[in-house]
Amino acid sequence: MAKAPAVSPFAPATLAKLPPIDGVRFATAEAGIRYKGRTDVLVAVMDEGTVAAGVLTQSKTASAPVLACRKHLKKGTARILVVNSGNANAFTGKKGRDAVDLTVEHASEAVACKPHDVFVASTGVIGEPLDASKFSGLLAGMAKDAKPDAFEAAARAIMTTDTYPKLATRKALIGDVEVTINGFCKGAGMIAPDMATMLCFIFTDAAIDTDVLQELVATHADTTFNCMTIDGDTSTSDTCLAFATGAAAKRGQKPAGKAKSKKLTGFSLALRDLMCDLAIQVAKDGEGLSKFVTFEVEGAKSWAAARTIARSCANSPILKTAIAGEDPNWGRVVMAVGKSGEAADRDKLAIWFGPHCVARDGERAAEYDEKTVAAYMKNRDIVIRVNAGVGKASATVWSCDLTHEYISINADYRS
Amino acid sequence: MAKAPAVSPFAPATLAKLPPIDGVRFATAEAGIRYKGRTDVLVAVMDEGTVAAGVLTQSKTASAPVLACRKHLKKGTARILVVNSGNANAFTGKKGRDAVDLTVEHASEAVACKPHDVFVASTGVIGEPLDASKFSGLLAGMAKDAKPDAFEAAARAIMTTDTYPKLATRKALIGDVEVTINGFCKGAGMIAPDMATMLCFIFTDAAIDTDVLQELVATHADTTFNCMTIDGDTSTSDTCLAFATGAAAKRGQKPAGKAKSKKLTGFSLALRDLMCDLAIQVAKDGEGLSKFVTFEVEGAKSWAAARTIARSCANSPILKTAIAGEDPNWGRVVMAVGKSGEAADRDKLAIWFGPHCVARDGERAAEYDEKTVAAYMKNRDIVIRVNAGVGKASATVWSCDLTHEYISINADYRS
Repeated sequence: MAKAPAVSPFAPATLAKLPPIDGVRFATAEAGIRYKGRTDVLVAVMDEGTVAAGVLTQSKTASAPVLACRKHLKKGTARILVVNSGNANAFTGKKGRDAVDLTVEHASEAVACKPHDVFVASTGVIGEPLDASKFSGLLAGMAKDAKPDAFEAAARAIMTTDTYPKLATRKALIGDVEVTINGFCKGAGMIAPDMATMLCFIFTDAAIDTDVLQELVATHADTTFNCMTIDGDTSTSDTCLAFATGAAAKRGQKPAGKAKSKKLTGFSLALRDLMCDLAIQVAKDGEGLSKFVTFEVEGAKSWAAARTIARSCANSPILKTAIAGEDPNWGRVVMAVGKSGEAADRDKLAIWFGPHCVARDGERAAEYDEKTVAAYMKNRDIVIRVNAGVGKASATVWSCDLTHEYISINADYRS
Repeated sequence: MAKAPAVSPFAPATLAKLPPIDGVRFATAEAGIRYKGRTDVLVAVMDEGTVAAGVLTQSKTASAPVLACRKHLKKGTARILVVNSGNANAFTGKKGRDAVDLTVEHASEAVACKPHDVFVASTGVIGEPLDASKFSGLLAGMAKDAKPDAFEAAARAIMTTDTYPKLATRKALIGDVEVTINGFCKGAGMIAPDMATMLCFIFTDAAIDTDVLQELVATHADTTFNCMTIDGDTSTSDTCLAFATGAAAKRGQKPAGKAKSKKLTGFSLALRDLMCDLAIQVAKDGEGLSKFVTFEVEGAKSWAAARTIARSCANSPILKTAIAGEDPNWGRVVMAVGKSGEAADRDKLAIWFGPHCVARDGERAAEYDEKTVAAYMKNRDIVIRVNAGVGKASATVWSCDLTHEYISINADYRS
């Protein structure tokens, strides 16, 4: 491994405290898959009646665990989740499928459930065979010892190059019953989620139908995780799973109805807010970052076009490097807008760095003052806003700069 | 400016010597546009009867000179080319158009030609107004003093972050008359040509129709410049222009016929070979590179799909950084193939690093030996070959690694 990167300057001063969710318990263990002296296996045990929803990577080289989740999501119920870090079990052929089968077998025995109630995820090196026997024997004991109040330990067990665990919690009312939504995720490099992020797990005690939960997760993934990028490199393992235990029904929660029903508005907003929170926490742990950068594109022809333009900026190595150098090089924003392929009116284009308009009507703004904007670039949080000048749609993408540290971290990740 | 980067390890030991082309003369000058103590303006004067063809950036934020070239190419004749370095005259609004108009006015006076016989190109910083009066007054004198034997000086005058001039020459027979094709180009960063490269100028004494030359240049750009990328960042200024003086007709060259005629086969192959040579020279001067990397994709559904997969690999920051670290991290090749969006059969995918097969049938190859492949990664020239397992089409993309030097060069380019 490369020397451990310093902690991200955006690591939260205190981690979010997640309350227990009725019907979910966690256990972690050190299986020694790749790392020494730290946990690398997570088990989440869920009560009977838990429904599952999720979105998975659109990669054409998806990992073996992703394929298993895709299959099991069709049933829409869950009893146990097993996650390991240190090895992605991606591009591992038949050995990879065997490793998933072994995990599913031991996990389903551990909680006496059907194989399709087991969900699995793996993160780490791609292409190395995963020896699942290192942890399959631990699953029964872990399931037995699982405890409700262990979200932080769970989030820590699935980290790879992350410098801090990403945790978030929200409350919402369904009818007059308060429900809780907890989530955690990991990811710091090879991050450009396409339908989901690297690994994200969401738990709620809400009583909600699988298809409704699925619709909400998929919809919100598009404007949260899929609007975040670190290096433009979509992973083989992107997985975002949500589990609803339905325990709130015991406290009087009535059926919640359809995804767009009024009764679910609060829950839907809280879920989106939580997913957005987690997505931003991932961007803020981008490998080697020194600045957190928000790209706001407005005046585009459609939301999709706005997001494409914003992503084009957020993935441009030459622009991200200029930001790292605290250079207000808005010419590179022009370049990134131009290469996006989406409609933009060169002669109406306007660009702001923070509150400072640097370009308007297709040329440098009259009030542009290099010193003022250069001073703004010294901030840790940078907002770059673009008006494409052709429509009314807008989108926001969260990202970070590209630094020497990113090169150092990735030049010897495996060695 | 950033400290001058060291010379690329791939700079040729000796530059190609380009013979004069009958009907073309060059002059360079120091106009002090941005750089001190070096030439930054180039004039090429061409005899009457010269035809012009070219391909220009597909960027939606194309520069003012690109728009002028696009207009003038419709007429298809040329008498003078004016190129400056240090300022791209891109995203400069009305001031940018005025700068082009001033240049065209003085250039057309200098050689007594129509405005549409003037071609212009600018390269350098985007978004700064270009003061064309710094060099417009020089054009008449430069045109008068222009000399045929000055290709190297011409190539040097248009360099920006380039560490060496890129020059190439070829000979071809049309009928039994030998003609010469000379070309030079520049580019080292913000390079992912889309229909043309940063700046490339080709000259020939062949007698050839405008539309035939256009067809050949456009066709060959697709498999040469458009198969090369340094950082995935398509420039606002990409320009590839070809000029044919027709002087070979005086030596008995008969009309050459259509682009696909047998008579033009030799010329077409020589032109493609020259463009390929120049494209590779650009990739070998990639900002901060330590390795020249060739991505060969085969077994794809179409040539376009193969190129998309190869580009996806060549533009992946996390893969390029692994190559810089001499890490045979083929898992990142799997990731880049997967994120390309093109069809690939995960379970038939095969990958080679140089002569070493590292993966076959969707998993690590049985004969894979980490030490052997790690030793191969120490080479300066790296070839990564992928078989996508779904068809018979193939494509090659030339690129380079991503190093600390790239970050250093681009973090303070403007300061």
